[in-house]
Amino acid sequence: MLTVLAGGVGASRFLQGLASVVNESEITVISNTADDVEMFGLHVQPDVDIVIYALAGAVNPETGWGLEGDTLNVVQALQRYGYPGWFNLGDRDLATAIHRTRLKRDGWQLHEIVEDIAAAWGLGVTMLPMSNEPIATRIVGPDGEIAFQDYMVRLKTGLEVRDVRFDGVEQARPAPGVLDAIRGAEAVIVAPSNPFVSVGPILAVPGVREALRTTDAVRVAISPIVAGNVVKGPAAQMLQSLGHEVSALAVARLYRDVLDLMVIDEQDRELQPAVEELGLACHVTDTMMVSPERKAALASATLSAARQYAAAQ
Amino acid sequence: MLTVLAGGVGASRFLQGLASVVNESEITVISNTADDVEMFGLHVQPDVDIVIYALAGAVNPETGWGLEGDTLNVVQALQRYGYPGWFNLGDRDLATAIHRTRLKRDGWQLHEIVEDIAAAWGLGVTMLPMSNEPIATRIVGPDGEIAFQDYMVRLKTGLEVRDVRFDGVEQARPAPGVLDAIRGAEAVIVAPSNPFVSVGPILAVPGVREALRTTDAVRVAISPIVAGNVVKGPAAQMLQSLGHEVSALAVARLYRDVLDLMVIDEQDRELQPAVEELGLACHVTDTMMVSPERKAALASATLSAARQYAAAQ
Repeated sequence: MLTVLAGGVGASRFLQGLASVVNESEITVISNTADDVEMFGLHVQPDVDIVIYALAGAVNPETGWGLEGDTLNVVQALQRYGYPGWFNLGDRDLATAIHRTRLKRDGWQLHEIVEDIAAAWGLGVTMLPMSNEPIATRIVGPDGEIAFQDYMVRLKTGLEVRDVRFDGVEQARPAPGVLDAIRGAEAVIVAPSNPFVSVGPILAVPGVREALRTTDAVRVAISPIVAGNVVKGPAAQMLQSLGHEVSALAVARLYRDVLDLMVIDEQDRELQPAVEELGLACHVTDTMMVSPERKAALASATLSAARQYAAAQ
Repeated sequence: MLTVLAGGVGASRFLQGLASVVNESEITVISNTADDVEMFGLHVQPDVDIVIYALAGAVNPETGWGLEGDTLNVVQALQRYGYPGWFNLGDRDLATAIHRTRLKRDGWQLHEIVEDIAAAWGLGVTMLPMSNEPIATRIVGPDGEIAFQDYMVRLKTGLEVRDVRFDGVEQARPAPGVLDAIRGAEAVIVAPSNPFVSVGPILAVPGVREALRTTDAVRVAISPIVAGNVVKGPAAQMLQSLGHEVSALAVARLYRDVLDLMVIDEQDRELQPAVEELGLACHVTDTMMVSPERKAALASATLSAARQYAAAQ
C-alpha cells in the first residue's frame, strides 16, 4: 500500500502519475481538509475535490481545480442575494458541495462523505479526509488573522503571511483509517504540496506526526519548490515571509523529523549534499509534471527511490 | 390595500396585471407554501418564487415558472450523486433555494426570508408566506399518498386525485401580517389559482377562513376554469376526480362561504345566474391573460367590479 499526504493541485498531479503506474487500489490518499470553507451555506472541500476530479480525469486542466468546461451561473446569480462574487465555484462543482452539505446535515461523517463522492466519480483509490472534525487554516498577516480562502481566493495570496494556524486542530482526531494507512504502508509519500497550508494541517492532526515517526514505511517527500520557485500556489512566498530560504532544502528541513527520503528536481542538484547532511536520503529527478508521461515518470522515480532506500536498510 | 391569495403561474399572471394598474405598494400577496419541497437538501418554494420572478419580469415566459434563459447544469451534475433528474430546477433558480436554505438554517423565519428575496428582486409588493410553519400538500391517489411535487413534477399530474390533505396544517399559524392583510384590505382577491392545491392550503391555515368570513373587505375570486377547462395546471382534472363539475360554478361553490363576488370568463356567461343563485355577485369579463394588456384589463375589471360591489352595499 502507498499512502499519499495530499493537498490540492500539486498533489492531484502527482497522484495522476502514481495512478498510472500502480493499481489505484494500492493507493490511499490522506487529504487536507483545513481549507474547507462554508460558502453560501454549502460545505466546500477544495483539496478533496481537486484530487477526486483529477483522478477522474474531469479536472479543469487550465486551473488545476474545478471541473473542465464548468459554468458559473449559480455563483453569479447568488450575487443578487448579497454573496461575494470572488468565490468562483463552478455549477457542477457546486453540485458536489450541495451533495456533501446534504449528507453532512443528514449525519454522515466526513470520511463517509468523501468515500461516497469518490465512489460517485468511479475512483479506485481510497480517499480519506485527514480528520472528521472541522479544522480551519487561519492566515496571520500584518493586520491580523483571516480565513484561508479569504487569503487564497479573495486576496489571491496577496498578503504577507506572518503565521499559519489551524483552528480546532487540538480537539481533532485523525479520521478512521488515517493512522492505519500511515502505519501499514510500504511508503508514505508527501506530495509536492504546500508544506505550511496543505501538508502542515495533516501533520498537525494529533497522532499523525507520531504515526509518521514510528511507521515502518519509507517516508518520502517530493519538493514543491524547484529552482527557488514554486510550480503552483503561494509556497515560495510563504517560505520567505515565514523566515525560510525558498528552496527544496528548506522544505526538507521542515519535514526532516518525519522523513527518510527527499525527492528534488534536477535543477536543484546542487542541494543534494545539504539535504543529505540533514540525515535524509536524497533522490534527484525531473519533478516538473507538465505532461502525463512526466507525471508517470516522477511517480515511478519516487517509487524506485523509496524501494531502493528500503532495500538498503 | 389589495390582498391577493396566490398560488403559482395563474396568480403570478394576474399579479403582473394588477401591478400594472395599481401601485405595487398597495398590493399584499399571501402565497401558498404547501408545495414547498426539500430537494437536494435545499428548500425550494415554487409558488413564492414564481410570483417574485413574474413581478420582477424575470420569469420564463414559456413555462410560467423558473427564470428566463436559465440552465440546468447543477441538476444534471447532481444525478451523478444519485439524485433524480426529474426535478428540473434551473441554476439561477437554484441560487434562490441555496440562499433560502442558508437563511433558514441561520434561524430566519420564513416571512423574513420571503421579504428578503422579494427585496433582492426589487419588488414593491408585500410578499407574505401563508405560514411560517411547514405545511406539505399530500396527494391521495388510488394507491396511497404521495408528496405534491411527486405528483406535479415527477408524475406530471398523471394520477387520479382522490383526496388532498395538508400535512402539518393543524399545528400551523398564519405568518405575521397575514390576518391583518385580510382584515385591513379594501379587497381580498383570490387569484385564478387551483382551488385545491394553491388556494386550498391558504384557506386551511387556522384562522384564515375565519378572517375571510369576518373581514370588511370585498372578497372576490377569479375563476381558473374557463369553458370547462383550465388554462394551466391540474385544476380541471382535480375537480372531476374529486366529484365536482369542471366549471367556474363549481369553483364558486368551493369558495362561497368566504366570497362576495365571482369573476368568470365571457365564455361562461351562461353560468352567471347559477353563480348568483349561490348568493354571490358575479362579474363577467375576459379572463384569458394572454398579453400584458389583457392581464391589466382583467385586473382593472376585477377592481372595478369589487368597488361597484362595495358601493352597492
